Amino acid sequence: MVSSGLMSSVPTVPHGSAAGPDAPVCAASERAPASNDDPLLLRAYRGEPVERVPVWFMRQAGRSLPEYRAVREHAGLFEICRTPELAAEVTLQPVRRLGVDAAILFSDITLPLAAAGIDLEIVPGVGPVIAEPIRSTADLRRLRPFHPDEDAPYVAETVRLAVAELDVPLIGFAGGPFTLASYLIEGGPSKTHARTRKMMYGEPLLWRRLLEELADIAIASLRSQVTAGAEAVQIFDSWAGALDPDSYRDFVLPASRRIFSATADLNVPRIHFGVCTGELLPLLAAAGADVVGVDWRVPLDAARTRLGEEITVQGNLDPALCLAPWEILAEHVRAVLDRGGGTGHVFNLGHGVLPETSPDVLRRIVEHVREHTDAGPRTEDAERSVPRV
Amino acid sequence: MVSSGLMSSVPTVPHGSAAGPDAPVCAASERAPASNDDPLLLRAYRGEPVERVPVWFMRQAGRSLPEYRAVREHAGLFEICRTPELAAEVTLQPVRRLGVDAAILFSDITLPLAAAGIDLEIVPGVGPVIAEPIRSTADLRRLRPFHPDEDAPYVAETVRLAVAELDVPLIGFAGGPFTLASYLIEGGPSKTHARTRKMMYGEPLLWRRLLEELADIAIASLRSQVTAGAEAVQIFDSWAGALDPDSYRDFVLPASRRIFSATADLNVPRIHFGVCTGELLPLLAAAGADVVGVDWRVPLDAARTRLGEEITVQGNLDPALCLAPWEILAEHVRAVLDRGGGTGHVFNLGHGVLPETSPDVLRRIVEHVREHTDAGPRTEDAERSVPRV
Repeated sequence: MVSSGLMSSVPTVPHGSAAGPDAPVCAASERAPASNDDPLLLRAYRGEPVERVPVWFMRQAGRSLPEYRAVREHAGLFEICRTPELAAEVTLQPVRRLGVDAAILFSDITLPLAAAGIDLEIVPGVGPVIAEPIRSTADLRRLRPFHPDEDAPYVAETVRLAVAELDVPLIGFAGGPFTLASYLIEGGPSKTHARTRKMMYGEPLLWRRLLEELADIAIASLRSQVTAGAEAVQIFDSWAGALDPDSYRDFVLPASRRIFSATADLNVPRIHFGVCTGELLPLLAAAGADVVGVDWRVPLDAARTRLGEEITVQGNLDPALCLAPWEILAEHVRAVLDRGGGTGHVFNLGHGVLPETSPDVLRRIVEHVREHTDAGPRTEDAERSVPRV
Repeated sequence: MVSSGLMSSVPTVPHGSAAGPDAPVCAASERAPASNDDPLLLRAYRGEPVERVPVWFMRQAGRSLPEYRAVREHAGLFEICRTPELAAEVTLQPVRRLGVDAAILFSDITLPLAAAGIDLEIVPGVGPVIAEPIRSTADLRRLRPFHPDEDAPYVAETVRLAVAELDVPLIGFAGGPFTLASYLIEGGPSKTHARTRKMMYGEPLLWRRLLEELADIAIASLRSQVTAGAEAVQIFDSWAGALDPDSYRDFVLPASRRIFSATADLNVPRIHFGVCTGELLPLLAAAGADVVGVDWRVPLDAARTRLGEEITVQGNLDPALCLAPWEILAEHVRAVLDRGGGTGHVFNLGHGVLPETSPDVLRRIVEHVREHTDAGPRTEDAERSVPRV
């Protein structure tokens, strides 16, 4: 089912092209062993000067693509994730169609929970629903340690199948500790995360144990994906922005640090992302991230000021702009690129692709990002870009 | 049904008490005609030095109170709003029980829409649901101009009844233009506001007309409430934080400005509030607000830095903390007060009271705010408080 049509439609990544004399020098380039033969995406994540800004989209695999919907007619979401041929196919679809600079594994952040003993299903139109939420120390016993090779071998197999077909890096991922805890405690999606935070403040020992176990699940999952061929990983702590900075620091940061610390030796760029995290950005970085994903609410230049020079930023076009007329959308794409400053920036949306998005629009965005950044940062935008020297 | 039991249970607001020699002098005190005989809340909103920080809670009237639930057993939400005796009773309940420094009108931001021709109902567990959403210029015709005296005379009557019983100011309110537009366009609550923003970007003329009409509805509503006796008003643009700053500035700020400009002559403090608005704070102020409500994500000292000295802040305890053990909660209450700096701060939650909150906890918070600020800002906290001189 994995089509090799991929090879002809993905533009070749220019290898080893030297940065022009005007290209800013990145202070973070010593962060990891650099090689000009590495794919554009990885060099950009490392903060190296790049010939153009790479681009991919969160949730590029799935919902908005007709070829994905065709697969979904015959298989449920988890069924796709658990069938390597299908999951690899769906992982490759957006790379073929959109020409993005990265693939992202088609999976779900809650999948390892299901594989680790939790009775969990994805209900269309709702999200993950957990039959028996975790609300006590006794409940916690239902969450077993996660052994990817035995509990979910299909994930690594998906990575291997996809990587064999890809000309761009594959990004693996895991759910962040707050977000997974909130699904487990609430029993499903929640507007207020009230029960979650009640446990967090009221039963700090139980909370800490739960978050440590969730961190360990993420660690096992990420290590397995990288071993199988993922060249970067993203921690989606999507709902961590429900917390004020003090609470994040006291109750979540230790578990986030555990994840980043236990994956440092993998030597792949690690991205940390959540929505509504304007005030948490420095803490998302302090967890040990190389790259911080920024939602659309925070202009990238302001994000950079909060994050410091060492951190690469990823983002942050408002996903709703993909529904806007092209001229408006293109203007915002350029504003994101200009605020991103060219170096140490990977273009993305500020959250996942909305289901009602046209794939043609996504492809056009990819082209526009290329056209706008191909010659390196423009002189007229120099004042708006953050000095990276 | 309005009980005069109120008078004995609400602490007398100390009138004309002189600020001690250590009380910070507020730069914003010339903003409105000051009088030391005015209630504590109004003096605090004006940024004057006060003898202690006043406190009230968004959504203090309703959901969490058993006496409110008793009323709800016999009447729906809109039925209460449309029956002045019931609405006034429910407005007074939290003042009696909690001893807060303000009452807030019991009503709903969507009520004027229903009164102005929109087929709208509040579905328990869902929120406002609109039978025929507004998605075209033709649809817009269904939204008539709003004449409070004819379309919703029960609101002003509720204000009059409540004010007659109150020893503290009553705060009136209206929905902000983005939030009301999003309900009208989506047809109900929405996670992504995708349709709303599609119209905003794609049909700017229709969008502008809609927002102007919504601003006019808010203006009429607020003027009527103040004429009836409301002594402060709050604009709840709760979901405006879904927008990035550029989009808010281009597509919402003009309508927000219209509201603040057309209510300036009322000479009452006007509060502007939304959640997830960390990056929008300067724009919420620029709309013309005297006070900006801050959600719990932004520490108040950081909010002050973004807002400048002229703006009073309101907030910003995380509502979920009301579910935490008292010692944790009390510590956060003190942190909010310390960061608020004593002057130019009105204590509140960062969003509405959660339904599962115990009224006893709210009362205890009120007492703790009083105890902690009664002697004016404490010397040991001087470093953490923002200089207001």
